[in-house]
Amino acid sequence: MLYFDNASTTKISEAALNSYVEASELFYNPSALYAEAGKTKQLLENARSQILKRLKAPAKSNFIFTGSATEANNAVINACVARKDKTYLISAGEHSSVYAAAKQKKDEGYNVKFVPLLKNGGVDKQKLFQMLDDSVAFVSIIHVSNETGAINDIADICAQIKQFNPNILFHSDGVQAVGKMDVNLSKLGVDFYTISAHKIYGPKGVAGLYIKNTNRFKPLLFGGGQEFNLRSGTENLPGICGFVTALKNVEIHDFSKHKQALLNEINEPHILVSDANCEDNIISICFEGMRGETILHMLEEQGFLIGTGSACNSHAAGNRVLEQIVPKNYLSGAVRISFGAEISLDDCTNLGKTLDGAVKTYKLKTKR
Amino acid sequence: MLYFDNASTTKISEAALNSYVEASELFYNPSALYAEAGKTKQLLENARSQILKRLKAPAKSNFIFTGSATEANNAVINACVARKDKTYLISAGEHSSVYAAAKQKKDEGYNVKFVPLLKNGGVDKQKLFQMLDDSVAFVSIIHVSNETGAINDIADICAQIKQFNPNILFHSDGVQAVGKMDVNLSKLGVDFYTISAHKIYGPKGVAGLYIKNTNRFKPLLFGGGQEFNLRSGTENLPGICGFVTALKNVEIHDFSKHKQALLNEINEPHILVSDANCEDNIISICFEGMRGETILHMLEEQGFLIGTGSACNSHAAGNRVLEQIVPKNYLSGAVRISFGAEISLDDCTNLGKTLDGAVKTYKLKTKR
Repeated sequence: MLYFDNASTTKISEAALNSYVEASELFYNPSALYAEAGKTKQLLENARSQILKRLKAPAKSNFIFTGSATEANNAVINACVARKDKTYLISAGEHSSVYAAAKQKKDEGYNVKFVPLLKNGGVDKQKLFQMLDDSVAFVSIIHVSNETGAINDIADICAQIKQFNPNILFHSDGVQAVGKMDVNLSKLGVDFYTISAHKIYGPKGVAGLYIKNTNRFKPLLFGGGQEFNLRSGTENLPGICGFVTALKNVEIHDFSKHKQALLNEINEPHILVSDANCEDNIISICFEGMRGETILHMLEEQGFLIGTGSACNSHAAGNRVLEQIVPKNYLSGAVRISFGAEISLDDCTNLGKTLDGAVKTYKLKTKR
Repeated sequence: MLYFDNASTTKISEAALNSYVEASELFYNPSALYAEAGKTKQLLENARSQILKRLKAPAKSNFIFTGSATEANNAVINACVARKDKTYLISAGEHSSVYAAAKQKKDEGYNVKFVPLLKNGGVDKQKLFQMLDDSVAFVSIIHVSNETGAINDIADICAQIKQFNPNILFHSDGVQAVGKMDVNLSKLGVDFYTISAHKIYGPKGVAGLYIKNTNRFKPLLFGGGQEFNLRSGTENLPGICGFVTALKNVEIHDFSKHKQALLNEINEPHILVSDANCEDNIISICFEGMRGETILHMLEEQGFLIGTGSACNSHAAGNRVLEQIVPKNYLSGAVRISFGAEISLDDCTNLGKTLDGAVKTYKLKTKR
């Protein structure tokens, strides 16, 4: 089976798994007071430093480990959406964990507004800036769309928002950006940034949140006071070590030729949502009058595993992001193809041919 | 080094680690729609069933996986402490994750009351029942104290509370009970029960919450709708598989002789907090006019790793639980010894001798 659903999750690398297994030996609770536990604590702090360094974080900033990116995103929303007299701007293209957490706050009476999207799934910057007023206290814009690969120019957006009002807190979910582009937190200028291990060949169940200024964050999980009292819970050191190894080893691939090789084979009418302003590793493409799930199963029979939009949207009735930007007759025929490190150009050509053939076959069958 | 701090954390067993590594192969996102992902989903649901079965949960009850017991406990408090006109009773001996989450709610204006403790760290049942009135909506009592090993008779307490008012929701944190006693959720009658993997030779970063009736729970983490929409986030299947293996393999040891062997060697004056109504695997013992940390380091030099009260309290200024039940002149001289599967009777005798000797030496040094 050729795996083309890497935006959903990736397989842990041997190196990351080895780090996990090795760190399992040094199992002591970092909060304990004996020297052996001190080593665990040191390993933990070393991991934190390496992540901050890798992401080129500014001095005095911090990073806390969480059990998932969903937790990190919920923690940010919980910390920042806190006053009924303020306005909170969330892009309509956020990952479901930001979107649903913000929606929950909206349902509780907070003034949460959703920023419209461009046709490629990126945020509409002009509309975002038009929505700014003195009541805005927090903005969350995903770095790279998990649905379409659309890249939001976070450095520019954040700079303009801070220029409007430096007190506005800015969060970006970087789960689909890390490992796909060079992430430089100093240049991005954000207050919060979410990253995840299992999207970059690291272990599942470990992620984290960059926090520029811990004074402007309050915890979601209370308890033993771990992670500088910002996220309680015994530290998952093996997971954390696997995470760091994955982040160190992840290679940024240029998938532009792969994307082109695939698209070259598609002759059936379609809407290509993932345009040139998208990361090349994600292709969101929609075929008229088809069902994405049917296409998925047809490709599965021929050895290709693809997605039908984000897995994190699969529990919902429709596709929240695509339904904002794709005409109705194309919407149900959406598939998401996402490349991983081991995919060759030939694989992409073959997938393109197979996909095109599947759509043809389906149409012929339906006509009969 | 002989490890006597098992209540803090345990080393993952070979079997649990193997389960983790094996499950890492089947890495697909359980939310994806292809058959390979269906296998992952099946493995996940199989894990859930096994945990419910192992804990003898009643039919139609449920269990959700979380990233830590701290998350599970915070989720329960978040779900249940929700109305300003209600009263919430939390034992003063709760694990810091229940206590701090409840304290946070109290600070936000909710009527949270803390139930006093007996001298062994168990909850004072009579006082608890006296605190019941029509405004009480939720009670949380730890099953086995992480500080002292005190066993709370949850079946009886829960039955009496439900008799008073069947609508009161009852939570018990069972992190230190599972693997130490036969946990039968049908008999306990609780609405919520927290368990953790890393205290029973399972992986860190995975835990879970038993929920009797999901209608009476609301999520802490919003997002992709995983775990029946009760806890979003991509499932940590390797961790979950390691957790289930750990739970299946954990053996309930009778440590009464071990406890006695250790105590037989203690001649120096002390207060033994962990009395006969405590699980024998945890010994909380306090020496007058000493510093627990000094004792810890003296024992460390002689090859024994012990704790000074719960690791989860180590970030706090004092020991919240012990300071309620131990006289001031004994409080700072508290140590916590907790047995694990590989400890022999001789180890316990040796630790007892070494501990007694350390206290003697310390006193002599201080006199000089």
